[in-house]
Amino acid sequence: MRFRLGLLGHGTVGAAFHELLEDRAEAVEATVGMRPELSGVLTRSRGDFADLLERSDLIVELIGGLEPAREYLLAALRAGKHAVTANKQVLSQHGEELYEAAREAGVQLRFEAAVGGVVPVIRVIHETLAAAHIERVHGIVNGTTNFILSEMTRTGASYDDALADAQRLGYAEADPSEDVNGRDAAAKMAIVARLAFGAAVSLDDVPYEGIERVTGEDIEYARELGLALKLVGSAERVGGGLAVRVYPAFLYGEHPLAAVNGSFNAVTIESPAITEITLSGPGAGGPQTASAVLGDVISAMIPPATLPPPAIALPLVTDVESAFYMHVEVADRPGVLAQVAEILGLQGVSVKSVVQRGLGDNARLVMVMHPVLESRFDAAAGLIGRLDFVRSQPRVIRVIEETF
Amino acid sequence: MRFRLGLLGHGTVGAAFHELLEDRAEAVEATVGMRPELSGVLTRSRGDFADLLERSDLIVELIGGLEPAREYLLAALRAGKHAVTANKQVLSQHGEELYEAAREAGVQLRFEAAVGGVVPVIRVIHETLAAAHIERVHGIVNGTTNFILSEMTRTGASYDDALADAQRLGYAEADPSEDVNGRDAAAKMAIVARLAFGAAVSLDDVPYEGIERVTGEDIEYARELGLALKLVGSAERVGGGLAVRVYPAFLYGEHPLAAVNGSFNAVTIESPAITEITLSGPGAGGPQTASAVLGDVISAMIPPATLPPPAIALPLVTDVESAFYMHVEVADRPGVLAQVAEILGLQGVSVKSVVQRGLGDNARLVMVMHPVLESRFDAAAGLIGRLDFVRSQPRVIRVIEETF
Repeated sequence: MRFRLGLLGHGTVGAAFHELLEDRAEAVEATVGMRPELSGVLTRSRGDFADLLERSDLIVELIGGLEPAREYLLAALRAGKHAVTANKQVLSQHGEELYEAAREAGVQLRFEAAVGGVVPVIRVIHETLAAAHIERVHGIVNGTTNFILSEMTRTGASYDDALADAQRLGYAEADPSEDVNGRDAAAKMAIVARLAFGAAVSLDDVPYEGIERVTGEDIEYARELGLALKLVGSAERVGGGLAVRVYPAFLYGEHPLAAVNGSFNAVTIESPAITEITLSGPGAGGPQTASAVLGDVISAMIPPATLPPPAIALPLVTDVESAFYMHVEVADRPGVLAQVAEILGLQGVSVKSVVQRGLGDNARLVMVMHPVLESRFDAAAGLIGRLDFVRSQPRVIRVIEETF
Repeated sequence: MRFRLGLLGHGTVGAAFHELLEDRAEAVEATVGMRPELSGVLTRSRGDFADLLERSDLIVELIGGLEPAREYLLAALRAGKHAVTANKQVLSQHGEELYEAAREAGVQLRFEAAVGGVVPVIRVIHETLAAAHIERVHGIVNGTTNFILSEMTRTGASYDDALADAQRLGYAEADPSEDVNGRDAAAKMAIVARLAFGAAVSLDDVPYEGIERVTGEDIEYARELGLALKLVGSAERVGGGLAVRVYPAFLYGEHPLAAVNGSFNAVTIESPAITEITLSGPGAGGPQTASAVLGDVISAMIPPATLPPPAIALPLVTDVESAFYMHVEVADRPGVLAQVAEILGLQGVSVKSVVQRGLGDNARLVMVMHPVLESRFDAAAGLIGRLDFVRSQPRVIRVIEETF
């Protein structure tokens, strides 16, 4: 059985979704029993919306902007079709109209990709925290500004230089104004606040400040004080009301958002029952956003599984590659390092770094190895432990490196 | 309409769930249209299971351990009742039998609380990442060991002292062996691996090492090398197979799990399409686990909402309390600090810390304020900006403190 998707827009995210869909259609079919297929693509220059709608079970709106996105989404929902969108502008300015249209037609409108890229902010607020009384949400919801602030912190670059770097690396657009002035983050916080607190919050209700006036000196003070400077979106209950805002803020080093660097997004949700949870991951980016969109499409196709499907057979491997740290006390005499290194080399273990320190008659050898099959490293460590100049069993701890 | 819950177990989590349910039943009814109510409580000393099952729509299993939990869950599922459990032992050792029983009866078996407390690991793998090909999961899934390692790192305490602290503060049980030897984490990783990769993985398949032999010296090396020592659960594709293990490991400082301290749990999920996402929050703990259980109960009552309900009216507040950082260049002469402090005091702004530094004829005043209504602080900053000895407009940035 086919599930027909009408795709609106074929820019960065649209093209990435198209590619991901072709890559994953078979796996999705195996899981949900229907094969998602494009029934057509509408762009500004080609395609007829009415015709595409007629031939689709679900509309994927990736055009962005207010019109014609709003018009297309409303038409789709009113025609009884599900819709999935990544469009923060239209949701933050016409959300109530769209939610109402979906409710009246009894169809789904999903928009995980509108906030936080692949970070499942929407689903977690909607589902996991359905029982919680949310008190406050703090978010780093704009990857461009987080990249710029992280670069300023890491390299001491000025705002202008960090922005230029972000543009060169593709983390900022040619016209970055809606990112750097906080308006993009404000739109996302309006959507989050609507879900977390149930009150209608529009972009116009959210005061925002950007990072354009942040100086290297501000960053320097932050470092001295053990603080991290971030562009923070905040939505919180205040008395009987609600405050939703975006502003640059210093975060204490222990705050869960303080360690979120680069173009990553993260959201911390606080509630008395749960204390807080934090979700983080890459923000925007074509493939990431496309992945969030496809997750929504699958959820619209069938209710999400509550159970794992019957188990498949996969062999369990116990001898895998790991990086290792090893330290060993040795007699401080010539040739020790050479012998240890020879044993490691014979087992194919490659040394990444080594430090030897004298301790009176003895010395301590601390080594970090490149990833190697554990059986090989264990063999080498066993042999090293039996060398006559070794004063203690080698202490061995695995090392996990950043993989992306 | 009522939705009847049969509660098995009334220990820490059971009692917390009972309390949370009474607190939130009305809000749940408003959202889902049914009121969740306890139909009875079964403990080791009172209650009849067959009778309770008869009078329940859903069984909440919070007894823990293998038997009679397994027997009760199977009986409930086979009787066509939904079940929600927080029981990692039974799922990691009899998961296939339970999943199969639920599938055959066409009922739900939900277990978000079995891994990561309120951190929605299960739901995110099941739903958000349904479209993703997961390559690797790294998790800090045991709060006791993470607390002990964090204390050893923070204070330089020995393993024994940190364990004693954890016991005194309620982060470790009187018999902590299954936590510190890695077996608890191994059970959770078996459950996670089953969901992430679809293969049957039992606790017996997961080799585990604990933290009992970690020394202060290991921690010291980690610090020197810019690494963090954590008890890591890892589940990853290796060639055509799967490796699932638990071991202490050094994490590079930039790894998303490196900054997860105290009794918190966190899981990083890697997949080509999404790069990675990290979920973190408090691990075990009665109220947190109870909140995850109630989330599961609500999801079992009705399919999760895909849309926000009609908006409620909440006033939008713009003048809220914030902590502030301010720096201002002033002429370096007597009385300057006194005048600035007087203006702040008159507006009710309380100073948390202040640093004054000479810069030739001028000085720089850097202050951090306690939280205060923004309108009051703005008024004070405006007045300070007009003082004759002030050489620049005050630079003002909000400060967000840890709130829990």
